[in-house]
Amino acid sequence: MRSGSSTEDLAHRLAVARGDQPADLVIKGGRVLSMFTGELLEVDVAVAGEHVAGVGPAYQGIEEFDATGLILLPGFIDGHMHIESTKLMVDEFARAVLPWGTTTVVIDPHEIANVFGLEGVRALLTAADRVPLDLYVMVSSCVPASAFESNGATVEAEDITAFLAEEPRAIGVAEMMNFPDVVAGDPASLAKVQAARRAGKLHLDGHAPGLSGKGLSAYLAAGVRSDHECTTYEEALEKRRLGMWIMIREGSAARNLEALLPLVKRFGPGNCLLCTDDREPDQLLREGHINDVIRKAVAMGCPPYHAVLMGTLFAARYHRLHEHGAVAPGFVADLVAVPDLEHFRPTAVWKRGRMVAEEGRAVDIPKVAAPDWMRGSVRLPTLTAEDFVIRVGGRVRVIGVDAGQIVTRALVTEPARRDGQAVADPARDLAKISVIERHRETGRMGLGFVSGFGLQRGALASTHAHDAHNVMVVGVDDADMAAAVNRLAEIGGGQVAVAGEQVLAEVPCPIGGLMSDRPAEEVAGAVERMEAASHELGARIAAPFMTMSFMALSVIPELKITDRGLVDTVRFELVPLEA
Amino acid sequence: MRSGSSTEDLAHRLAVARGDQPADLVIKGGRVLSMFTGELLEVDVAVAGEHVAGVGPAYQGIEEFDATGLILLPGFIDGHMHIESTKLMVDEFARAVLPWGTTTVVIDPHEIANVFGLEGVRALLTAADRVPLDLYVMVSSCVPASAFESNGATVEAEDITAFLAEEPRAIGVAEMMNFPDVVAGDPASLAKVQAARRAGKLHLDGHAPGLSGKGLSAYLAAGVRSDHECTTYEEALEKRRLGMWIMIREGSAARNLEALLPLVKRFGPGNCLLCTDDREPDQLLREGHINDVIRKAVAMGCPPYHAVLMGTLFAARYHRLHEHGAVAPGFVADLVAVPDLEHFRPTAVWKRGRMVAEEGRAVDIPKVAAPDWMRGSVRLPTLTAEDFVIRVGGRVRVIGVDAGQIVTRALVTEPARRDGQAVADPARDLAKISVIERHRETGRMGLGFVSGFGLQRGALASTHAHDAHNVMVVGVDDADMAAAVNRLAEIGGGQVAVAGEQVLAEVPCPIGGLMSDRPAEEVAGAVERMEAASHELGARIAAPFMTMSFMALSVIPELKITDRGLVDTVRFELVPLEA
Repeated sequence: MRSGSSTEDLAHRLAVARGDQPADLVIKGGRVLSMFTGELLEVDVAVAGEHVAGVGPAYQGIEEFDATGLILLPGFIDGHMHIESTKLMVDEFARAVLPWGTTTVVIDPHEIANVFGLEGVRALLTAADRVPLDLYVMVSSCVPASAFESNGATVEAEDITAFLAEEPRAIGVAEMMNFPDVVAGDPASLAKVQAARRAGKLHLDGHAPGLSGKGLSAYLAAGVRSDHECTTYEEALEKRRLGMWIMIREGSAARNLEALLPLVKRFGPGNCLLCTDDREPDQLLREGHINDVIRKAVAMGCPPYHAVLMGTLFAARYHRLHEHGAVAPGFVADLVAVPDLEHFRPTAVWKRGRMVAEEGRAVDIPKVAAPDWMRGSVRLPTLTAEDFVIRVGGRVRVIGVDAGQIVTRALVTEPARRDGQAVADPARDLAKISVIERHRETGRMGLGFVSGFGLQRGALASTHAHDAHNVMVVGVDDADMAAAVNRLAEIGGGQVAVAGEQVLAEVPCPIGGLMSDRPAEEVAGAVERMEAASHELGARIAAPFMTMSFMALSVIPELKITDRGLVDTVRFELVPLEA
Repeated sequence: MRSGSSTEDLAHRLAVARGDQPADLVIKGGRVLSMFTGELLEVDVAVAGEHVAGVGPAYQGIEEFDATGLILLPGFIDGHMHIESTKLMVDEFARAVLPWGTTTVVIDPHEIANVFGLEGVRALLTAADRVPLDLYVMVSSCVPASAFESNGATVEAEDITAFLAEEPRAIGVAEMMNFPDVVAGDPASLAKVQAARRAGKLHLDGHAPGLSGKGLSAYLAAGVRSDHECTTYEEALEKRRLGMWIMIREGSAARNLEALLPLVKRFGPGNCLLCTDDREPDQLLREGHINDVIRKAVAMGCPPYHAVLMGTLFAARYHRLHEHGAVAPGFVADLVAVPDLEHFRPTAVWKRGRMVAEEGRAVDIPKVAAPDWMRGSVRLPTLTAEDFVIRVGGRVRVIGVDAGQIVTRALVTEPARRDGQAVADPARDLAKISVIERHRETGRMGLGFVSGFGLQRGALASTHAHDAHNVMVVGVDDADMAAAVNRLAEIGGGQVAVAGEQVLAEVPCPIGGLMSDRPAEEVAGAVERMEAASHELGARIAAPFMTMSFMALSVIPELKITDRGLVDTVRFELVPLEA
């Protein structure tokens, strides 16, 4: 959405505020939670165009909404998320989150950027133009994530400057994930900092799990001002003391609210905001979004005013979105009416003055088709079982996976053997894992072993594979692995579970191999069936596809795999399968 | 000053932060008050170039400062002031306030703008280039203040846009003083709002004494986000509830801290910051600046952390100065070392990494001469006693002045008469008052009566006369009035006290008729002698020149005077002297 800021809009807004013209909408009889004092104010809210014009008694409107018994909050803001994790295109994402009160999201679209570059980001913004949701972009800074990854596009410092300069909704640079390089003063990293400065948008998100001491000072000295990777109170406290904004993350896999809320209780909500980072579509639909994080915070003893501040005004302030985050004159009319400050289940939601959700259902969200060029991005030769055969003599390296962790262990073991081949061994929880390049149809593949998924038969394959989003497949049967990969090529990407060369379940994601073009409920249902199918195949970890998606991320310790082979991510070098 | 932000600066900063290079300066052994948690941290502060690089233990530096027993605070920020009120040019102003810990000021230079337009503002910024003080400008929005004032230059909406677009230190639009016009949606006012938006700097200071209810909503709806005119708790609370930043003002005349501090005690320091608006040079030298306001707040029971927040980080956040307001890596190295959190008398002050004051004395502040064209701006024909003769028959309007108020009362009385003339009558505290146009040498003058100064003999004259800064003279003797005005023309403006056609005291302000070119101590001394002289002449109000300076401000009720005559500022029209 764009903002209504012409002189005519302004004149109308003032006339409504003065009471000289009827408001376009008045929400009457409710109470507004002031983001500036924490008080509940018994006032009407008069809306003119896309903005709140007046907050006070006795406004009249062309349309009036009776909010008796309700509390009005500003629309919720997700301070950092990857929309691609929801597998929903912008319109369906909006339809999913607006009923929960989310009216603004700040995205790092680095999944789509790894497939299509900044053209992919632009396509998301173009889609957002027609949808009642404010989508702001922190421009992805690490595309590709490393030289070991074969992705679809590269984003250079000059691209960042140009994009920031021309796109008003691009507000800064996304998480500087390669924090060791930033700390080390690596020229390519500094070039990205300077790219933001040149565009007049020196606003840098961080990503620095465990960074502390002098390294932390260096990261901050570079201009980074936030972190969403804190997992302990002590870590968050050290970072906050030095001015870092603590993004308290509550996603599908990483959930840090319980660990970090004591910081808010001890020092207040200052310099804290909420985010989800990665949230799956089924969780989004069933549990909620930022409202769910606020609800949990309050349930854990956070004062509701403080929880709401972190999910609204403070997120807006951190991101310098000066018209967002409060129900007050001159702010955009993003409003959430809730019956209480405990459950945060909105009765009604308005986006820029228009009602967009009521009683949990979105209202009139237009369908927006993704452009055709975003389809057909999974380019692969047809594979056979033979492609997954491993012929090595000695002991092999194995990626050791622990449930709920994206960090892996570098293991070494003697594989099972059959007909001179090293094969999967379900009894010892030893599966094969492979990544196949899919952007340029090279068919280049890395092949190895993984332990920890628990797979007993079949194969699981996905084009959600951070950050290059090549094809990731884990299986105990070579023919099933080939069938799963071939099926992904057919449906244009997504997720698939195969056994006996039959597809058991699938989540088609034809948009860049990352996002669905189907309604949110359908996608959430497919994700749930996929989860069930993977467990049927023996997978015993909670979110096998989420875990798989991080096995190719070559910047996370210790051992990962890309289309170029196994990567020792501690020494940052390719290593052979044979140990 | 400009910021050091080249890639080389950045690389050096990171190397210092990591401990790989010695810092340019390390402040060791002190405690830093974290602006983000309120804790006192026992850490070293490592400075690289103009920025803080590292905050933590065990940094080494080329230069080291032993801060044992001291507490380090961020440099203080005055969120709103008119530098011209200090009568000091930028260099001497810096020399006066740096020892008090002020390292950044946000000025509305509307006095100089009324004389020279935005060229005058540019001259102040050019002077600031060579001085260790960050001077940011909110571009004056009301030049001239009204059509009844004959000033030296006009600032149009297009001028504002151009200035904001080209000058990085111009950060927004200064106090929208004509708040009734803004509320009414007057096109010229809205054009100024849109000028800021067009430049991408929609950041608007307010000035709205007593504005409330729907008018307040309208003012905020226009985009105004601050007010420094609150005088009561209730007024400030209403404004803060709706998102207005409350600038708590503690100037020479208007002192609002005591009335407003309860708001901070009740709701915390959020959305509050400190400013001085107008502070006289003697007060600045003797009592202090923002440190003085912080000290008073603490003495009144405000927690020191909250008081410092309002004088540093929150002022920076309101003004979107993202590298100011904290002692933390990546922030500019504006540091104040104090022995305690009670007196706020700095032991040492650093500006962008360089020590600029120690034990109350400024260190190495270069002299910066104002350009010649800023002199000789008081252009007048030579006046005689005859010019001040009043010949009217009936009752006359009288400007009724109350001590400490800039609002006046519109009185009517029968004047004393002598030789067919209406004359001053000291016994009834009735003096003459006149404003003479001085920018274009028209000699046009308004003439009338004033009550409340208490003047018993002689005349007081000044070129500090808001906002047009014509010559303002109050006297009980026509010849003395002429002599005072003529003396001002000779010295290029300032203030003068005359009796028996002899100059008793004067404060020459040859720069635009507003600012001195002399050292701060000399100016402060002259101001004190001037105060004494005016009391010698019988003036019984505390700050007669300050009060005089508002008698020509045609936007303040009820009756004022300009070179065009008496102005009924309620009905906003010229009125005759005869009632």
